[in-house]
Amino acid sequence: MDFTEKTLNSQTVYDGKIIKVLKDDVEISDGTKAFREVVKHSGGVVVLAIKTQSPSSALQAPSPTIGEKDRSVLFVKQFRYPMKEVLLELPAGKLEYGEDPFKAAQRELEEETGYCADNWTDLGFVYTSPGYSDEKLYLYKAENLHFTQCHPDEGEILEPIEIKIDDAIDMINKGEINDAKTLCAFFRSKFI
Amino acid sequence: MDFTEKTLNSQTVYDGKIIKVLKDDVEISDGTKAFREVVKHSGGVVVLAIKTQSPSSALQAPSPTIGEKDRSVLFVKQFRYPMKEVLLELPAGKLEYGEDPFKAAQRELEEETGYCADNWTDLGFVYTSPGYSDEKLYLYKAENLHFTQCHPDEGEILEPIEIKIDDAIDMINKGEINDAKTLCAFFRSKFI
Repeated sequence: MDFTEKTLNSQTVYDGKIIKVLKDDVEISDGTKAFREVVKHSGGVVVLAIKTQSPSSALQAPSPTIGEKDRSVLFVKQFRYPMKEVLLELPAGKLEYGEDPFKAAQRELEEETGYCADNWTDLGFVYTSPGYSDEKLYLYKAENLHFTQCHPDEGEILEPIEIKIDDAIDMINKGEINDAKTLCAFFRSKFI
Repeated sequence: MDFTEKTLNSQTVYDGKIIKVLKDDVEISDGTKAFREVVKHSGGVVVLAIKTQSPSSALQAPSPTIGEKDRSVLFVKQFRYPMKEVLLELPAGKLEYGEDPFKAAQRELEEETGYCADNWTDLGFVYTSPGYSDEKLYLYKAENLHFTQCHPDEGEILEPIEIKIDDAIDMINKGEINDAKTLCAFFRSKFI
């Protein structure tokens, strides 16, 4: 089946800071004409960071036999203006122009939680809203964490929070965590 | 911590068919001023539809002891204009104004795949891009399918395809399926 859609004309209807919006006239493969509204986004990164030490045993070396119950995931609590709600999400952020996704992931994890990680695993990418947006999020797992300090972006008010892996999965399944990128990173990681 | 952001002024910068875009001036809880770009979307539905009968045994009654290897998930292959790629996604569609999500899920499954389902399970919802969009997707699992006929929307060219559950999970983990809503529905369902 031929799925191609050919761009006949492209018009920028909004050119903002985080997004740009196009309205394109297209020709569908069956010859009919239509228009497509497209949100252009620079893409972003998402980090599933796993902490093996409890806050009270920060000086203890991580044990190779540590179980899931001793492992926590770093989340951030943040007001999300589009839905006017405080959401629990994995640390994430948008790519700066031309930025390498892996470097961005390292930067965002440290900015939002204060942690650096020694071990990183590539969990691929997802498209968040392929019907109308080109946003592509690169997912990473980060392990062997060590604390430096938080320094969030200006205008970004967030609270880092640690949640045990099993509790986080329960919260996802109960609908207490509803952020799509967070579910995607959990799915692609090997906990499940 | 007070996360609230107060709207000082709201401006519609684009009012289209699928999306509307706002540019709002806000006051953050620390007193600083900022602006927020918001994509308004009517929301949508996603259906993880599970077929227990193989195409060659359509007349055979479903067996309660059927294993994962005998169960398939209905996908649709579709050209996604924002990334100019053909993607594999679960059947999905946007809510019409005021439409009940469950009714929309039934409608979209039949429109896109030709199947109706007798058993439906609510899998909650996700926010696809909470940083800049209010899009909320309601997730459902559909079982006990029976074929009627496909009647996709005008201008919607798609190909339904059945994939064994285990193969679909492999494809997600290998990065061959990268649609966020699809991963979310799989996570919330009980296969994993």
